[in-house]
Amino acid sequence: MSIQNQQTKLNIGLFGFGVVGEGLYKVLAHTPTLNAQIRKVCIKHADKKRNAPATLFTTDANELLSDESINVIIELIDDADAAYRIVTAALAGKKAVVSANKKLIANHIEELIALQQLHDVPFLYEAACCASIPVIRNLEEYYDNDLLQSISGIVNGSTNYILTKVFEEQKTFDQALLQAQQEGFAESDPSLDVNGIDAVNKLGILLTHAYGIIANPSEIVHTGIQNLHADDASFAKEKGYEIKLVAQAHKLQDGKVAAFVLPQFVKNSQLCTVKNEYNGVVIESSLADKQFFYGKGAGGYPTASAVLSDLSALRYNYRYEYKKLLYQTPSELSNDFYLKVTISFKGLFHVQHERFDKIYEWSSNENRCHITGVLHFSELLNDDWWKQHGVSIILSPEGIIDGYVPEKVSEEVEFVEAVA
Amino acid sequence: MSIQNQQTKLNIGLFGFGVVGEGLYKVLAHTPTLNAQIRKVCIKHADKKRNAPATLFTTDANELLSDESINVIIELIDDADAAYRIVTAALAGKKAVVSANKKLIANHIEELIALQQLHDVPFLYEAACCASIPVIRNLEEYYDNDLLQSISGIVNGSTNYILTKVFEEQKTFDQALLQAQQEGFAESDPSLDVNGIDAVNKLGILLTHAYGIIANPSEIVHTGIQNLHADDASFAKEKGYEIKLVAQAHKLQDGKVAAFVLPQFVKNSQLCTVKNEYNGVVIESSLADKQFFYGKGAGGYPTASAVLSDLSALRYNYRYEYKKLLYQTPSELSNDFYLKVTISFKGLFHVQHERFDKIYEWSSNENRCHITGVLHFSELLNDDWWKQHGVSIILSPEGIIDGYVPEKVSEEVEFVEAVA
Repeated sequence: MSIQNQQTKLNIGLFGFGVVGEGLYKVLAHTPTLNAQIRKVCIKHADKKRNAPATLFTTDANELLSDESINVIIELIDDADAAYRIVTAALAGKKAVVSANKKLIANHIEELIALQQLHDVPFLYEAACCASIPVIRNLEEYYDNDLLQSISGIVNGSTNYILTKVFEEQKTFDQALLQAQQEGFAESDPSLDVNGIDAVNKLGILLTHAYGIIANPSEIVHTGIQNLHADDASFAKEKGYEIKLVAQAHKLQDGKVAAFVLPQFVKNSQLCTVKNEYNGVVIESSLADKQFFYGKGAGGYPTASAVLSDLSALRYNYRYEYKKLLYQTPSELSNDFYLKVTISFKGLFHVQHERFDKIYEWSSNENRCHITGVLHFSELLNDDWWKQHGVSIILSPEGIIDGYVPEKVSEEVEFVEAVA
Repeated sequence: MSIQNQQTKLNIGLFGFGVVGEGLYKVLAHTPTLNAQIRKVCIKHADKKRNAPATLFTTDANELLSDESINVIIELIDDADAAYRIVTAALAGKKAVVSANKKLIANHIEELIALQQLHDVPFLYEAACCASIPVIRNLEEYYDNDLLQSISGIVNGSTNYILTKVFEEQKTFDQALLQAQQEGFAESDPSLDVNGIDAVNKLGILLTHAYGIIANPSEIVHTGIQNLHADDASFAKEKGYEIKLVAQAHKLQDGKVAAFVLPQFVKNSQLCTVKNEYNGVVIESSLADKQFFYGKGAGGYPTASAVLSDLSALRYNYRYEYKKLLYQTPSELSNDFYLKVTISFKGLFHVQHERFDKIYEWSSNENRCHITGVLHFSELLNDDWWKQHGVSIILSPEGIIDGYVPEKVSEEVEFVEAVA
């Protein structure tokens, strides 16, 4: 065994000293065996009171980036543009980098991989997906592309918190969002969470480590819970379903991958056990059936925990190898498959029933119409009728119908329009 | 990035062609991208009909072990002694080895680590713990010793199947065991499962990868569900508990580790969601709170899936580094802590109440007496009164009471003896 009894000693330059940064500082200070020390912290506001010696802080990024004794940069700031400049400069300076910034990573993953290769340094970001759940590492190391059937995850804590309050405590969506903000589970501008942007950023990262797919999040079909209506919740409850916002990727029979973020009715799934701000990911692989990873997906401490695990990995010279992308034949995204969905809309707005290949069921009341049927995925790609004008879409529990043989919607289907 | 675009091509010698072996053979034959080929299979019974070309088979172990073209040995046989000879010979011959044999590994882990070091070859055995759940790999790679608070797992599918049938379908323990055997979830001699031997073997392996502890399973306090009584199930149900057989290890305040396999009352725990033959492991780490890993823990396919993941890891030259043992200061097992337990026994047998440091509650009926109280762990170490004569022990949901300040059991406690 080629034993490297010398662990790499980590001398850290830290950007950001919020809950995560301060938590990290404390743990590292109290756990000398981790062999990692924060040398300098770059902050934005010099005059804020901090629970650490003043000499530790600077407002000059270059003090960290040009310090030769610092071999690891941890980037924990909000601003994705500033984070981009810090991370790329650090990699170019041959420093290892740890980040939790999913927006930055999802939007620049191709360039960030190239920089790692060019400068021969690691860039780890387990905290960017499901915080404390080691999902990136497991996809990268444990699940072969060829054997990985699917990933389905609740990857955004805020929306899951809201959905839990709506389903378990009969709150309205608005009340639940307010409560999420009060408890610190949603941003003051919660639209990134609520509209599914945060979830699709994470899905983008997962696609790279699961299937070697590089996809810009804006090109992945996604929506959030912004258009879900009280009547959608009632509709779900009547059928014994809950609604979860699920980021998912499935390998199709043709070897391509279907991927999207959509609300979904769930029942008898491990995802039903994921409540409040928790995250959970179901991974399905050949032979192994389903595996479920569950843990806190948001918040300062779980994020700090993932950053710590990345630091630990750096001590042993771990790096992502992007195996599915660089060593294997990467998969491609597919646009050619069918989904079973329920479309919910207010009576006055017309959803063209011709979009459906098959309609199983429709219903309407004074508030909402619900149509459940089969749509070709391209119906969601080509325009966004399905998230305009308060239309909501909820995937059926079956989700993708792989190998579906199209039927034409019978002209005789009596289609109920506006009732309002 | 130091890219090894060349994956190691795996030429496999396979021992055993049962469900797992045959499953593996099929998957590898149909998935050439895995870059792994079974060259020869050593079987015990030459005349059995096999779904593979006859030229693939031999009954001579040396044909595999001395074949220079074979660089990986997969050992999937029942007999732990024969497995020991195969695995040690293969490692000595500088072949990488994959095994699912928890008994072999748990009982010889120190020697098997030394052989890996001496001959500079990897030995992987993810399938030996919780089959398809990548718990060994995550403990080894993701959770620092210093930050790992605890592991609690349902690691034996057969006993969990039995407990599920008792609690959900009101079966008796005997009926449930019979059903487990009929459905193939228990061995024809189920005592290894039922008595907790299988679970403690797995706990031994987990202790090495979690905390760097080498412990012979026979020295770890353990029991199974063999003495659980219908009245214990009723007792649990009255309190809203289920009973699970839990293998667990907890870091104590003094830095040592408490470890044991005991039945436990559970409520409001992720472990409650683990039903039938499934396994689940809760890992608690500083900052990250609890994480939960869940999947099929037994059966041919989940085992084959874990073996496949090990093969995939070998292609990229992965090996366990035994970081907690070799690079860090390993933890030690503790015998100095208190447990809150319920002891259940038949009236005629006397359980000495002096063993308890504190008694919270006792009850008795014509079948069973139940005492709930606090025991020092040494009471379970020094003799096995707690599993003799039909006595059963069930850990309370709190389990370990770390930092418990002993009281003497008041002499005035009125102790109810035999009621029978």
